[in-house]
Amino acid sequence: MNDVLKQIETVLAERRNADPDSSYVASLHHAGLDKILKKVGEESAETLIAAKDAEHFGKKEDLVYETADLWFHTLVMLSHLGLSHTDVLTELERRFGLSGIEEKASRDK
Amino acid sequence: MNDVLKQIETVLAERRNADPDSSYVASLHHAGLDKILKKVGEESAETLIAAKDAEHFGKKEDLVYETADLWFHTLVMLSHLGLSHTDVLTELERRFGLSGIEEKASRDK
Amino acid sequence: MNDVLKQIETVLAERRNADPDSSYVASLHHAGLDKILKKVGEESAETLIAAKDAEHFGKKEDLVYETADLWFHTLVMLSHLGLSHTDVLTELERRFGLSGIEEKASRDK
Amino acid sequence: MNDVLKQIETVLAERRNADPDSSYVASLHHAGLDKILKKVGEESAETLIAAKDAEHFGKKEDLVYETADLWFHTLVMLSHLGLSHTDVLTELERRFGLSGIEEKASRDK
Repeated sequence: MNDVLKQIETVLAERRNADPDSSYVASLHHAGLDKILKKVGEESAETLIAAKDAEHFGKKEDLVYETADLWFHTLVMLSHLGLSHTDVLTELERRFGLSGIEEKASRDK
Repeated sequence: MNDVLKQIETVLAERRNADPDSSYVASLHHAGLDKILKKVGEESAETLIAAKDAEHFGKKEDLVYETADLWFHTLVMLSHLGLSHTDVLTELERRFGLSGIEEKASRDK
Repeated sequence: MNDVLKQIETVLAERRNADPDSSYVASLHHAGLDKILKKVGEESAETLIAAKDAEHFGKKEDLVYETADLWFHTLVMLSHLGLSHTDVLTELERRFGLSGIEEKASRDK
Repeated sequence: MNDVLKQIETVLAERRNADPDSSYVASLHHAGLDKILKKVGEESAETLIAAKDAEHFGKKEDLVYETADLWFHTLVMLSHLGLSHTDVLTELERRFGLSGIEEKASRDK
């Protein structure tokens, strides 16, 4: 489970220069940043809608699906701009003080 | 690096029922789903803005920061609704066929 | 110019129950609220992207086009839920105190 | 009712260079385009949330309020970039063929 984001990054890098007609990832890169960002915005909206339905109907499959879509398109965005999921995880680690978890725990009190 | 999301999930669970005045995570849960979703939408917009600035000015720190904010608030959303980042990673793994990476690679050609 | 929103509302009402295959408006109503909201979110993202391009390149046509798309899909949303642009304008009028513009002007100082 | 957008535009122009401490509009312009766009994205998310609640609970006041917020911040955005609501209405008029409404009606069949 731990390496899923790393494995996806490898796949995204492989497909980046593939034939746009045969790979969705390649078609996104080929269309450019605005197309990728439009998808991020669209998947964000779909995540909100699915979360409201999860709240009202208790059905959570759609929310998992839409959140996966949102994360996926942010990964393509990072890849398009020469960034990696590890940049984001490092920022989260820094913010949460996870390299020194005791220090964080004391700070949060 | 691999366990950052898992460590964050543990921290989020610990803080869920903390004093809303002392913990941002607790204050989000206390305010409710709509507040959390509003933050997801807001961070999505900030991610788009930062990505456009990364494109125009080559400055990528803000994009890493905003994407971390976006992922963080989706993690709080998942936690609020009894879901986990592992649900999302499992969906991504399924979609990418990462449990059988060779099969996926052949399918993508 | 003043009656454009009213004229659009009339057209939207006429097309609401048209053949989904021949009218985009009818196809949106037929697909349902989630489809309409997904479009609102998508056009919002495109508006942000176009605004950043207007800032960087001074080219404003796309921003006008995307804002029109955003307003249009909010009008379809209102229509789908039995609301009217006049409800929104009445709220804006109330907020700005436009029925008593002098009072507002003094309040704003 | 018809002149609400025009009256708002006048008020927005008056307040643009007001004291940021005394006018919300002035504070938005002072903070800059990114702040205004962040608000557009935020209000878009709140509109989606309110629309889902209108669907589930039949309570429509919040949706009118949030849509007004969304339109208001797009008007501030247009003003900030030297554009007007009339640019957007002209685009909608062109698109709907409202200057020649019969022609449009036949085109839509």
